[in-house]
Amino acid sequence: MVKGKITSLAVKDVRFPTSLGHHGSDAMHTDPDYSAAYVVIETDADDALKGYGLTFTLGKGTEIVVCAVNALSHLVVGRNLEDIVTNFRDFYRQLTSDGQLRWPLWKLLVDMTPEQLVSCIDFRYITDVLTEAQALEILQNGKQRQETREERMLKSGYPAYTTSCAWLGYSDEQLQKLCADALQDGWTRFKVKVGADLQDDIRRCKLIRDMIGHDNKLMLDANQRWDVNEAISWVQELAAFKPLWIEEPTSPDDILGHGTISKALAPLGIGVATGEQCHNRVMFKQFLQARALQYLQIDSCRLGSVNENLSVLLMAKKFNIPVCPHAGGVGLCELVQHLIIFDYISVSGELDNRMCEYVDHLHEHFKYPVTIHNAAYMPPMDPGYSTEMKEDSVLSYQFPGGSVWQQLIHDKRVEI
Amino acid sequence: MVKGKITSLAVKDVRFPTSLGHHGSDAMHTDPDYSAAYVVIETDADDALKGYGLTFTLGKGTEIVVCAVNALSHLVVGRNLEDIVTNFRDFYRQLTSDGQLRWPLWKLLVDMTPEQLVSCIDFRYITDVLTEAQALEILQNGKQRQETREERMLKSGYPAYTTSCAWLGYSDEQLQKLCADALQDGWTRFKVKVGADLQDDIRRCKLIRDMIGHDNKLMLDANQRWDVNEAISWVQELAAFKPLWIEEPTSPDDILGHGTISKALAPLGIGVATGEQCHNRVMFKQFLQARALQYLQIDSCRLGSVNENLSVLLMAKKFNIPVCPHAGGVGLCELVQHLIIFDYISVSGELDNRMCEYVDHLHEHFKYPVTIHNAAYMPPMDPGYSTEMKEDSVLSYQFPGGSVWQQLIHDKRVEI
Repeated sequence: MVKGKITSLAVKDVRFPTSLGHHGSDAMHTDPDYSAAYVVIETDADDALKGYGLTFTLGKGTEIVVCAVNALSHLVVGRNLEDIVTNFRDFYRQLTSDGQLRWPLWKLLVDMTPEQLVSCIDFRYITDVLTEAQALEILQNGKQRQETREERMLKSGYPAYTTSCAWLGYSDEQLQKLCADALQDGWTRFKVKVGADLQDDIRRCKLIRDMIGHDNKLMLDANQRWDVNEAISWVQELAAFKPLWIEEPTSPDDILGHGTISKALAPLGIGVATGEQCHNRVMFKQFLQARALQYLQIDSCRLGSVNENLSVLLMAKKFNIPVCPHAGGVGLCELVQHLIIFDYISVSGELDNRMCEYVDHLHEHFKYPVTIHNAAYMPPMDPGYSTEMKEDSVLSYQFPGGSVWQQLIHDKRVEI
Repeated sequence: MVKGKITSLAVKDVRFPTSLGHHGSDAMHTDPDYSAAYVVIETDADDALKGYGLTFTLGKGTEIVVCAVNALSHLVVGRNLEDIVTNFRDFYRQLTSDGQLRWPLWKLLVDMTPEQLVSCIDFRYITDVLTEAQALEILQNGKQRQETREERMLKSGYPAYTTSCAWLGYSDEQLQKLCADALQDGWTRFKVKVGADLQDDIRRCKLIRDMIGHDNKLMLDANQRWDVNEAISWVQELAAFKPLWIEEPTSPDDILGHGTISKALAPLGIGVATGEQCHNRVMFKQFLQARALQYLQIDSCRLGSVNENLSVLLMAKKFNIPVCPHAGGVGLCELVQHLIIFDYISVSGELDNRMCEYVDHLHEHFKYPVTIHNAAYMPPMDPGYSTEMKEDSVLSYQFPGGSVWQQLIHDKRVEI
């Protein structure tokens, strides 16, 4: 058992000026600077164990998240590591945050007993669809042939799809080139941003479908651009391109609206995907109850903790809905790969119609970046949740004092 | 038309150590220090016009709200007042905040044309239940006999209920005394906090019902304590005391759960009330669509702006659901009275089964405190949204440097 206390918590505002290259642009977010509130925890353990965490933001307002982290830090600093590890649920109820651990996170989760996993979950508000006993049963079933699935992951990884080819701000030429490169690299699943202009969408979807052919998969993402009825009629116009799903067609809070859209698009064979903006298990519970999504997109940061994600993975299993995580941003790929690999090995046991988002961006700032091989996430083998950033990156991108920001300000390329 | 520019915005962290007296305690919030992030805006208008705003918090974390206000202030400072007033919707889309105005707010709203009111509302995401044309029709109907209703408000005020008698942390003796005093002051509607212990709830409900008799109204508030099925069985045990509603029986995000509870309690004549934690119009839209509440409780701060509240008042009218605002806290009574008086005069036109919460606490810190007469809110006649605090109060309660906090820290009554 791990010994020692948490002695300090430091949080930094780290920003990458991604808006300059239109990376990450979509129908709603035209100029995001991908950023993170980045936390480093120190301990007095014999081996000088450290913990790392981050949450992804879009630039402006990161200082608010930093402020929120500081406001919660007194709940963490001074805590005994053994107390945390022996009662995760208790710790979680106080924090809405997770302990940082010494195994790769996915392996820690996979090796925990069903009883230990269940003891991490707060069932308050979800017992009407998932009780502790039902969760335990799902996890006990998940132990069957777990080794086979773990071997499969270590050999072939978890299937990924790419969002890097078709951001809304890219030109057709850029889109074509990126798509050709991706096909050459073995990618078979592609996502296109839509929702700003219907004629543009038709042209871009046709262009991509022609390039990738009908054996590969195409997904659409509207980033909350439409009202409910508008979403239905707009997607009907794109049905000819046979998209697997339409993602975030309307307000991410509109469970009943997503239900209406799901029902209307089902005859066209188009599913609804959402979840990256879902802030807790109660929202996911209702999306499942209302049959309002056919692909459930957890997000490692938005959902606030591993614990909360566990409850959502289990509810998705109960409703037989595939989990296809949201990733990209800063560090989201690094984090969420742990959760989805655990989902396959210990919860869902299936890969049909399942895939994890991938965006080829900003990984170079991480000490343990994701490894993509043949369009699949290879299980990380380094300790922790793959959250640790390179010291140089933090120094250069800290906002607004880091050298990169100082240079941009000096060159009048950005204003603060 | 108002002339001038916004020249500065200052925000202060003001906290009242209410937890020392158990004021505000309920099943989930055992020791709140009622607090506010308090904003003062200055202009260069000829008459030195100022604007005031606040949002209510429970103490810890107010610095996060202050930080958020500062992060948004660049959207406000430097803005031309005329530009704001002539295109509220545009301003609102940028801010999620409201312009501060020179009339009492309720009177400004009442005197606006239906076209002007509709132009304040962002209909994105709600057109499937309320279009701009439908909203206009509701407001045009609301103009009929508006003067009669305005006179009635000025004469008799808007009916209120009291929550001051039965906080969870009060002893039976304290509860009895406060209840007797309230009856003597003319109160006829009472709310009791429940949800921590069933036997306690039964004893307290009996005690209050015996004191107030069956001609007066009794409401229950569980402050999100229960799971869905637990809520149903617990409230069934309290049905003998004939409560009008059960408030916040479960997670405030659980629309479908509230729908299940509503259906189960309908045969007992008990309604479900919720809304104080509802963060936007999309959530309220669904609560109405799912018949998940029978009393809709707007909150002037949580909902983030007058504009957002307007859309909710109109949706409630369309579904024929009474709006019974949440108030109390710091300044919530001062703010929300404007919205509910407007609702009666220009939207709902009805008082049946309608009432606004009242808590007799912290009003002395406001320059224009609410006036309660014969258990009713009398329409405020001073300019603005009744948000301005007394300078002395702000100085004394600013956190942590204000004299009150310094004294408490010095006396070791609080730790920071």
